[in-house]
Order: sequence, then structure tokens, then C-alpha cells
Amino acid sequence: MNHFNFKILRKDKNTQARAGQILSPHGEVNTPAFMPVGTQAAVKTLSSEDLKEVGAEMILGNAYHLYLRPGDKLIYKAGGLHKFINWKRPILSDSGGYQIFSLNPLAKVKEEGVRFQSHLDGSYHFFTPEKVIEIQHFLGADIIMCLDECVPYPSTYEFAKRSVDFTQRWAIKCTEEHQKNDFGEKFGYPQALFAIVQGSTYPDLRERAAKSLVKLDFSGYAIGGLSVGEPKNTTFELTELVNQILPEDKLRYLMGVGTPVDIIEAVGRGVDMFDCVLPTRNARNGCVFTRFGKLPLRNSEFISDFSPIDPKCGCATCKNYTRAYLRHLINSQEITGLRLASIHSLHFYQSLMEDIRKAIMEGVFEKWKKKFLKEYGIFEEETSEEKRIENHFHK
Amino acid sequence: MNHFNFKILRKDKNTQARAGQILSPHGEVNTPAFMPVGTQAAVKTLSSEDLKEVGAEMILGNAYHLYLRPGDKLIYKAGGLHKFINWKRPILSDSGGYQIFSLNPLAKVKEEGVRFQSHLDGSYHFFTPEKVIEIQHFLGADIIMCLDECVPYPSTYEFAKRSVDFTQRWAIKCTEEHQKNDFGEKFGYPQALFAIVQGSTYPDLRERAAKSLVKLDFSGYAIGGLSVGEPKNTTFELTELVNQILPEDKLRYLMGVGTPVDIIEAVGRGVDMFDCVLPTRNARNGCVFTRFGKLPLRNSEFISDFSPIDPKCGCATCKNYTRAYLRHLINSQEITGLRLASIHSLHFYQSLMEDIRKAIMEGVFEKWKKKFLKEYGIFEEETSEEKRIENHFHK
Repeated sequence: MNHFNFKILRKDKNTQARAGQILSPHGEVNTPAFMPVGTQAAVKTLSSEDLKEVGAEMILGNAYHLYLRPGDKLIYKAGGLHKFINWKRPILSDSGGYQIFSLNPLAKVKEEGVRFQSHLDGSYHFFTPEKVIEIQHFLGADIIMCLDECVPYPSTYEFAKRSVDFTQRWAIKCTEEHQKNDFGEKFGYPQALFAIVQGSTYPDLRERAAKSLVKLDFSGYAIGGLSVGEPKNTTFELTELVNQILPEDKLRYLMGVGTPVDIIEAVGRGVDMFDCVLPTRNARNGCVFTRFGKLPLRNSEFISDFSPIDPKCGCATCKNYTRAYLRHLINSQEITGLRLASIHSLHFYQSLMEDIRKAIMEGVFEKWKKKFLKEYGIFEEETSEEKRIENHFHK
Repeated sequence: MNHFNFKILRKDKNTQARAGQILSPHGEVNTPAFMPVGTQAAVKTLSSEDLKEVGAEMILGNAYHLYLRPGDKLIYKAGGLHKFINWKRPILSDSGGYQIFSLNPLAKVKEEGVRFQSHLDGSYHFFTPEKVIEIQHFLGADIIMCLDECVPYPSTYEFAKRSVDFTQRWAIKCTEEHQKNDFGEKFGYPQALFAIVQGSTYPDLRERAAKSLVKLDFSGYAIGGLSVGEPKNTTFELTELVNQILPEDKLRYLMGVGTPVDIIEAVGRGVDMFDCVLPTRNARNGCVFTRFGKLPLRNSEFISDFSPIDPKCGCATCKNYTRAYLRHLINSQEITGLRLASIHSLHFYQSLMEDIRKAIMEGVFEKWKKKFLKEYGIFEEETSEEKRIENHFHK
């Protein structure tokens, strides 16, 4: 088993973009990387074989969800999360900070940790920073996350400041707890611990958070609490600000982001890792991503469209099925339709990351970006695809 | 493309069981055969690739459902049902008689046909025998079915008799309509037309129906209107009675049957073809079939059971996942669990049919049956697995 390592292979000259490679106990991950979200020990609608086929190199699990069901001890008994779900490649486990607060509006935060009720059965639980690390030691993911307090948007300065301070002191406790399992006694390999930079939309708090966490020397740094409703330019300004503080040789992970355009914008600002439910959630609503923009498969224009989602796409769905058939499946509430749409959209995301990496390695990231955005239907002055009119291959 | 043909390869000496082979425009099907049910142009939760992998040789579509959504004309425009769903092997389309009556309690039957309301939007439709054949010509299945009136259980003798007479006169009209497309003008291959023997639980009506339909010389004969709530011994007595009348060189299809034990019993009475939603519907409820009986994966005894459903099973689910993981997926409402369970149960059904065929070919059907039932947990004097206590590998 390998130790954890990250090396930058190439930096873009005109932007902050970088292409690199993570070496983890479960193999390599090329960056910038997108991790499909397997909240409950499964990426919705897909098997591990499907995930391999769409080209996913690393997936995400969630400590909050897995602690509640089926339980971290059970997963440990199964031989760890990798064995439990039969996924041999790297996994990152999120601490669940975001879930505690988003699923438990009444969660009580104090110095020692956070008290919350299970969204499943209302039972009470108390997460300390130490407990969250212990859970993640039982899960055995390659990358684990510190407990953070994720504040909603908008939040007052005072509230956000208090939360940054909690998160900072919790990060110290997480480091200490993690050192107890530093050499991977549980599974025979070390796990890499990442800190999470919070600070809501306040630049000085983000700066303060980043600076104090960097002193603790983590294997990587996440930027949390963004993409929660704030304007897109705020997201990117704060991402850029934080990345200027974070050490260049460490991984940078922008949590919960985003659309293809968001990812491209964030890569240009120095981000290496992403996760988002968007491709799979949209797919389950019948809307898939393509290089020409989003394609809402339910639309009547596809009733007798016997071409694949994208004739140039190499995914299992595009090789075998037509838009008309997918539309029929989705409109008939056939589960198969949700899976086939998810396969396409995750394959699209993985191909997008591959294209981004290739462009950076070849030193043409900006040129590639311009071309991609044009084909995707985004005007240059825009930073968000939300502004633009849906484009269904009908330009 | 081949014409339709059926040849018997071996007859069992002690029972009515026979092993044979169907030659159809889309290839061979070994009999006795089990057809997974793809009501709405999809076997629920599965893709065509999954169906190939579980070993399905022929699947079933439904004219009633496909006429209503997405429409038989649309499927014709797609190049037929095979192309629409990307399934290159044989398909049988049911006429939808059963669906009209089960989904439309107010359906009105008269000499010309049946008037019913769509279960989707309440719109009125009128199915004549000719219309149902025309729909199936547009779908292009290898085997198509006559329109029948399927009466509920119990039905009065008078009602059942009237229905047999309708079904008989409709069969004549279906034959006439079918001759118009006898050489497969639509797709370049001929479709085989099967009649359906009705008659509720009345032996003389079943006999009358079978005898009059045999005179019309169909490519095969289905036994319909059974397994609708009548006692199991009635099902088997009537199956045996009808099979004694049906010509030996023609295919016999027992519609909507059944459990593994039902199938074995019916094979011993001369049935060649089966279809049933049981393996897939049960799987979606978390209950899978195994050679040791049914396994309700939700049960708490499987919480930390890290063995596959059946260690000797070669299906994709058993090769990759444990009972504990499947239980977790199903209890967490993860769609992937429904698919993985469906894959196992359909693979089990296809393996069962393979074992049945092998036993008949080797002249050991009865011996094999005895061994199978013992392992499955059925006492010899029983004919139905419903009587027995659930057996979860804990004998």
C-alpha cells in the first residue's frame, strides 16, 4: 500500500490551474478530479462496476450518513468502506459537517462539538471532532475530513466568525485524534487528513481561517460553505483568495461544486478536487449534461429522436440507447432510465476533467476553455451557465 | 432472418416434460424457457445488457402498455421494438387482454371488441381483435398473441362461457388480420401468432376452448386466465387437461406463472414457456430467490452477513456484493439495491430453466426435481411453496 502523496505535474502559465496526481493507498487519482457522490455507500442508481465504466477515479462517502446507517463499526467489520461497497479505487469521506447542519436545523453547537438528531429516526447524537475522526478511521477512506461548522448563506459576521473559531479549534483536536491512527493500524495504510476553510462570504474570515489551518500542516485543504446560495462571483473571488493563502504543494478541494462551468472557473483559480450531486441528481430528474449544454430528456422534441444523447460520446448509454427510448423510460417512471441518464452525465463529467487535465498538460487551458464554453453555449462575459437560455443542440 | 420453428429435442419418459428449441427471426430460444417481463419496453431496473448477462433468451413486451405509451407507431418508426429497446434476441408481445381487464374494471366487452379507459389518462380506446394484431405488427415481436378476454377468479360458468366464445371468435379475426402481414412486410420477417386458451376453472370450457382453437392451427398455444387466485391444484389440473388436447408439436405457454416450484410442476405437465413478474417484483421488495428458497434481504439476520446471496451463484451481484451491503442498499432506498437484487433473481430463474432443460435432456427430470425441491425446502407432498415456512439457509 502506498502512502499519500500529491505532485503537481504542470502549472498553467496564464491562470492558477494545475494538473497533478494523487498517490493514495488505493491507487492514483489524476487532478483536477471530480468525485461522484456516494452519500449512503452508493452513488445513486449506480453499481461499482458502473462507476469504473464511467471513469471515476475517486468517489466520496459521508461519515454522517454512514455513522447513522449502516454504522461505521459495521463497515469496519466488513473490512472497511472499500470492501463494503466493492470499490477498489480511492475514497474520500466527508466528515458530515454540512449534513449535520443542513439536515438538522436545530443542531446545537458548543465548544466540545455538536448535538443533533438523526434525520432517520430522531435519535440524539453528539459529534465531537475526535468522534468524527474515529468514525472515519473505522470507514478507512483514503482521505478524511475534519469536523467543521458549515454556516448557511447569508450569515452574520459574528456568527460566521464564531464558526471559523470553532472549526479551527476542532481542526486541532482532529489532528490530535488522527495521530493516534497515523500509521493506519486499522487497515494497514495511513489516511490523509484534510482541513476545511470556512468563513461564509467574509474575505477576512476566510483569510483568517486559511492562515490558521495552514499552520497545522494538513495533507490538503477544502474550501467549504460555498455554493450554498451566494452569488457566483463571490464563490470564485473567495476561492481565489483562499487559494492564494493555501500552500501550493497541497491539494485544494472545493466542496459541493458544481456545474461544468463552475468547475472550469474554479480550476482556473487553482482548485484540484471537486464533488457534486448535480450530474446524478439532474439525471434522476431526466436532465443530462452534454458538451452542448443541458439536455432535458423529458421534452417533447425528443419523442421520436432516435439519435443518442451525444453521437460523439463513448458512454454505455450513448453506445446503446436513443433519446426517444430514454425519454420513454423516464416518462414511464422506469428506474432504468434514471440509471442510464446518470451513467451518461457522470461519464460526461469524467471526460470533462480529462479534457481539462489534457489542456493544462499541453499548456492550452485558456484556449480550450474558450472553445468549450462556446460549444456549451456560454458567452465569454458570463461566469455562470444559470444565466443562459437552455441549449438543446439547437443553435 | 429465420422463419419461426419449434422442435422437440427430448421427451421425458415419466412425465409430460419436454426439452426443445424455438427458432425465431431473432435467434434461438431453448425450452422450457422463462421470459422476464418488460411491460413498458423495459424489464424493471434492468438494461438490455443486464438481461443478456443474466442469460435471458427471450423477453416479453405488452401491446396494451406500448400502444398507450410510447405508442406502437413510434416504436415502428424506431425500427421496431427490438431496435427501440436495443434487444437483439427474440421478443414475445402479449396482446394486453389481461391488462385491459385487470387495469380497467369498467371495460366493456362486445362482439366487436373491448372498450376501455387508459390507466394513464382516462382516455377512451377500443381494441378489436384486428387492432391488437395491427399493433403487434407495428411492434414486430417474434411471437404475438391473439386478443383474449381474461375473466377474474372466481367467475360464473355463464360468464366464463361467453368469454370463451368471444375469445374463440376473436381468434379467427386475429388469424385473418395476421395473414395480411404473413410474410412480414413491415420488418422483413414473419411473426408467429399464438392463441390463448381461456375457460376459467371449468374443465369443459377449457376443453372446448382448446379444441376449437387447435382447429385454427396456430404456431403455439397459451394457457391464460390461470394463476389469478384459484387453488394451485386447479391450476395444474387444468394445465394438464389443456396440454392433453394441444398438439404435441406446438409450443405451450402458461401465462403469468410463476414461482420456481410452479414452473417445475408445469414443465412436468408439458409446458414450454413461462413469464412472470415474480422474480423482479419480489426483488424490488428486497426478497430474492435462491436454490434454498426465498431470502428476504431486509431481515436483521443479514446485518453483518458478509457472504454473497449464494456463494455458488455466478451472477454479477453474487460475484461482487454481500448480503449485508444489499440489505443496507435496500433499507436505505438506494435504487442500486433493487437492480442488484433483480439481477440475482432473474439469473436464478434462467439457471433454473437451464437445469430443467439439462435434466430433461439427460432423462433425469424427476430425480432432479426431487433433489431441487428438497434443497429448496419443499416436502414432496406439497405442490406449492406458499405452504411452507420461509427458509433462509437455516435448515
